[in-house]
Amino acid sequence: TIVASELRCQCLNTVQRIDFQDIQSLKVTPPGPHCQQTEVIATLKNGQDVCLNPEAPLVQRIIQKILKT
Amino acid sequence: TIVASELRCQCLNTVQRIDFQDIQSLKVTPPGPHCQQTEVIATLKNGQDVCLNPEAPLVQRIIQKILKT
Repeated sequence: TIVASELRCQCLNTVQRIDFQDIQSLKVTPPGPHCQQTEVIATLKNGQDVCLNPEAPLVQRIIQKILKT
Repeated sequence: TIVASELRCQCLNTVQRIDFQDIQSLKVTPPGPHCQQTEVIATLKNGQDVCLNPEAPLVQRIIQKILKT
């Protein structure tokens, strides 16, 4: 679920699986004054936003794949 | 420079250097119907958007650093 306001953490929970083809973009936000945790939010081609676990190997693989495309 | 419309590539040129502390978030976008190139856009704490070169080792290091924070 994504919390609407930008002034605090946006990710309450994270999905464990995501299909690379569905991803339109990925936003990576380091901890900051508004939120103490790193957040990885994928915007899907259907317009939906989903949160991914920053520590999950899946996320690293997705980012590598995007950067190498 | 960032091109306003989202319906085509947003990055005309990329900066070679960026200070990690200045980064509020990083958006990574794979090629898609609107743009044939992978784009990495950093939103800075001063609100400015700057494009980074997806192939630059700097970008990989920044992302790793964010994910490990």
